[in-house]
Amino acid sequence: MLIVADENIPLLEEFFADIGEIRRIPGRTMSAEDVRDADLLLVRSVTRVDRALLQGSRARFVGTATIGTDHVDLGWLEDNGIRFSAAPGCNANSVAEYVLAILSVYAERCALDDWSRLSVGIVGAGNVGGKLADKLSRLGFTVRLCDPPRAEREPERELGNGLTFVDLDEALACDVVSLHTPLTRESAHPTYHMIGERELAGMTSEQLLINTGRGEVINSAALHERLMDSSAPLVALDVWEQEPEINPELVHKVWLATPHIAGYSLEGKVQGTEMIYQAASHFLGLPVRKKAGQFLPEPALSTVSFTGAADEHVAVRIALRACYDPRTDDARLRHALKTAAADGLGSAFDRLRRDYPVRRECSSLKVQLKGPGRSLQDSFRAIGFKLKV
Amino acid sequence: MLIVADENIPLLEEFFADIGEIRRIPGRTMSAEDVRDADLLLVRSVTRVDRALLQGSRARFVGTATIGTDHVDLGWLEDNGIRFSAAPGCNANSVAEYVLAILSVYAERCALDDWSRLSVGIVGAGNVGGKLADKLSRLGFTVRLCDPPRAEREPERELGNGLTFVDLDEALACDVVSLHTPLTRESAHPTYHMIGERELAGMTSEQLLINTGRGEVINSAALHERLMDSSAPLVALDVWEQEPEINPELVHKVWLATPHIAGYSLEGKVQGTEMIYQAASHFLGLPVRKKAGQFLPEPALSTVSFTGAADEHVAVRIALRACYDPRTDDARLRHALKTAAADGLGSAFDRLRRDYPVRRECSSLKVQLKGPGRSLQDSFRAIGFKLKV
Ligand SMILES: NC(=O)c1ccc[n+]([C@@H]2O[C@H](COP(=O)([O-])OP(=O)(O)OC[C@H]3O[C@@H](n4cnc5c(N)ncnc54)[C@H](O)[C@@H]3O)[C@@H](O)[C@H]2O)c1
Ligand SMILES: NC(=O)c1ccc[n+]([C@@H]2O[C@H](COP(=O)([O-])OP(=O)(O)OC[C@H]3O[C@@H](n4cnc5c(N)ncnc54)[C@H](O)[C@@H]3O)[C@@H](O)[C@H]2O)c1
Repeated sequence: MLIVADENIPLLEEFFADIGEIRRIPGRTMSAEDVRDADLLLVRSVTRVDRALLQGSRARFVGTATIGTDHVDLGWLEDNGIRFSAAPGCNANSVAEYVLAILSVYAERCALDDWSRLSVGIVGAGNVGGKLADKLSRLGFTVRLCDPPRAEREPERELGNGLTFVDLDEALACDVVSLHTPLTRESAHPTYHMIGERELAGMTSEQLLINTGRGEVINSAALHERLMDSSAPLVALDVWEQEPEINPELVHKVWLATPHIAGYSLEGKVQGTEMIYQAASHFLGLPVRKKAGQFLPEPALSTVSFTGAADEHVAVRIALRACYDPRTDDARLRHALKTAAADGLGSAFDRLRRDYPVRRECSSLKVQLKGPGRSLQDSFRAIGFKLKV
Repeated sequence: MLIVADENIPLLEEFFADIGEIRRIPGRTMSAEDVRDADLLLVRSVTRVDRALLQGSRARFVGTATIGTDHVDLGWLEDNGIRFSAAPGCNANSVAEYVLAILSVYAERCALDDWSRLSVGIVGAGNVGGKLADKLSRLGFTVRLCDPPRAEREPERELGNGLTFVDLDEALACDVVSLHTPLTRESAHPTYHMIGERELAGMTSEQLLINTGRGEVINSAALHERLMDSSAPLVALDVWEQEPEINPELVHKVWLATPHIAGYSLEGKVQGTEMIYQAASHFLGLPVRKKAGQFLPEPALSTVSFTGAADEHVAVRIALRACYDPRTDDARLRHALKTAAADGLGSAFDRLRRDYPVRRECSSLKVQLKGPGRSLQDSFRAIGFKLKV
């Protein structure tokens, strides 16, 4: 069996060597010729998967190690009996941890020892928003979910953890508003420029707006205008309109600016491979024997140990930031902005993503606690740390 | 023997209970009546020690658990045969660690993986500046010392670590300039407004200016003016003109702003008591049996463990910030500024200092390293961490 795969999919050998021969190809230049003899085709978002690529190929299964499927002509695959699988949610935990790290820095800025006193409005409660809501509820935050498509599908409106769905304006009234919707223009609830002049006018300087969904969900001209005023909310953006050609003026005006890397943990990337490995195994009728965890390299930081003297909120803050501090990525983007030529910002943005340093999730860090502190243990577990009591 | 002491001196019992009976008095209201029967008098900077307090007292020894002696009439004590002792340098390590923590954040801002590529000009190479220079040299930084009084006294100009003395302008040409002089107006090299319009004009936006010495060493009107321009250096201030009535406009314009807490580690405070205990013991002819270390409480964070996968610079950054991140104190001051009434900033500034949370030095944290990494071990040792290889 021949497996043709984008050479940049991590852990290809580890997952697929048992299944067949692997032919590694640069994803951007993958051609019909390359995939003609493939039984399985494994891609990332840089390969356009359509008739031009696949007509004449014997491939019966295509997997993309990404959550997005914009690069895949799903209709054509279906019409041609080619099974397709993506990796929805593979980096949801990475994004949720990114948002938690921002909340930790924001709480400090507000002189809140107990970050869970912040209310958080989550707009878009899918893989990412749902995971974030789960962690926040367990940590004791007040959480409001806005997700009209789900609210229509799940009429009970009962979500566990005492959560209910609210409308956009209610979500926008929370201390923190975090956007996790896809970009849609034609749907019943289109998200394109969903946050515009009206929505931004309603927010105050006592609020924080975070966007890790898609840049076009916020009307950035309206945001730029709003940020001229001192009554504007604080803003943290990981996604931007017209990436990679982002607006440098907007970077200057927002509090935290990162280059679309919220989902870039190593765990998230590796889970993308694991998910297409599972789907391919099911398709082939093979047993699923391998787990991403067994291939993850040792993290640089393995353990942090607290004593009985540790205050819950300080301990959580230390552990979380030791794992990931979004201000490091903010500094990288701002530095690139300062040093890139005026017309080179787009490629600088892409470079920051391509050369992103290895980032590990909280699950890679063992937290050792002395003494009782049930609540402290629960908090660390809710965030996703490994506990060593 | 009666020991009259400011009730806010930490670890009084632990150090002095063996020596005599301790009478604890609020330092601000300590009166001649309170100290009449004292054999030893122990104060902090809030008690004015002069004839008004001591005439008629049997005290023969006065110790202040502070580095400063402005509150003590040294001449009167000497004329009256009263032995005096202060605690010079007790918090020097605390300040040096504060500066290292700032350098770590600044290097990130400059996208420098290796922070030691920064050159550092140290103005004032006494207890604090000397300790900082020592750590930085061991870490491989290029260090320039400017200290005309010392340069005159130490004509060899040989300082170990290949250091030499330079003049102010040479120090001001370094990537980072860190001020550690006392405030003097009448000396041969007065420091009052030593950094003024001319000095600030010579600095560029590629430089960082840190002041943890005394606020009045910088002409803050000139600094405020300079900071209007985008070519201004980045500025981190821990000390301010006219504390506690600091200029809020200046806070807004500087990069990092902290409320005169660089020296506020617990170790620094406790070492102040240790130093007057030692001096009092010598004075009384008693053996010096106790060390501050034996009374320090357990720190909240006890150990961080790195694996062989740890990159030196990342590991140092994580450990240093887990111990102390100056941005936390910056956030506290800015929040106080935002919420204090216009006329209440002074008392807010004082409150931040009075209610300062327990901060531990790097020596309280054990760093565990796996694998060889000689250079990594040296770096951790140079900073002051305890190593557990
Ligand atoms: N920044 C990053 O690195 C990063 C990483 C992962 C995902 N993402 C992005 O985050 C977004 C969410 O990802 P996901 O995996 O959770 O997707 P998902 O499809 O699992 O969830 C999206 C949710 O948004 C809801 N939604 C749709 N329209 C809405 C509307 N008008 N108002 C409110 N909710 C609406 C949907 O019902 C769904 O529940 C996507 O745009 C994805 O591209 C970004
Ligand atoms: N921010 C804080 O929390 C904090 C903590 C400790 C000390 N301090 C301050 O830091 C300063 C230094 O403290 P220290 O304990 O190192 O004092 P120190 O007396 O040990 O050293 C001061 C040094 O400055 C030098 N100096 C004097 N005039 C100078 C000039 N014109 N140019 C260059 N150097 C000059 C002296 O020769 C001396 O070596 C003091 O003002 C002290 O109050 C602040």
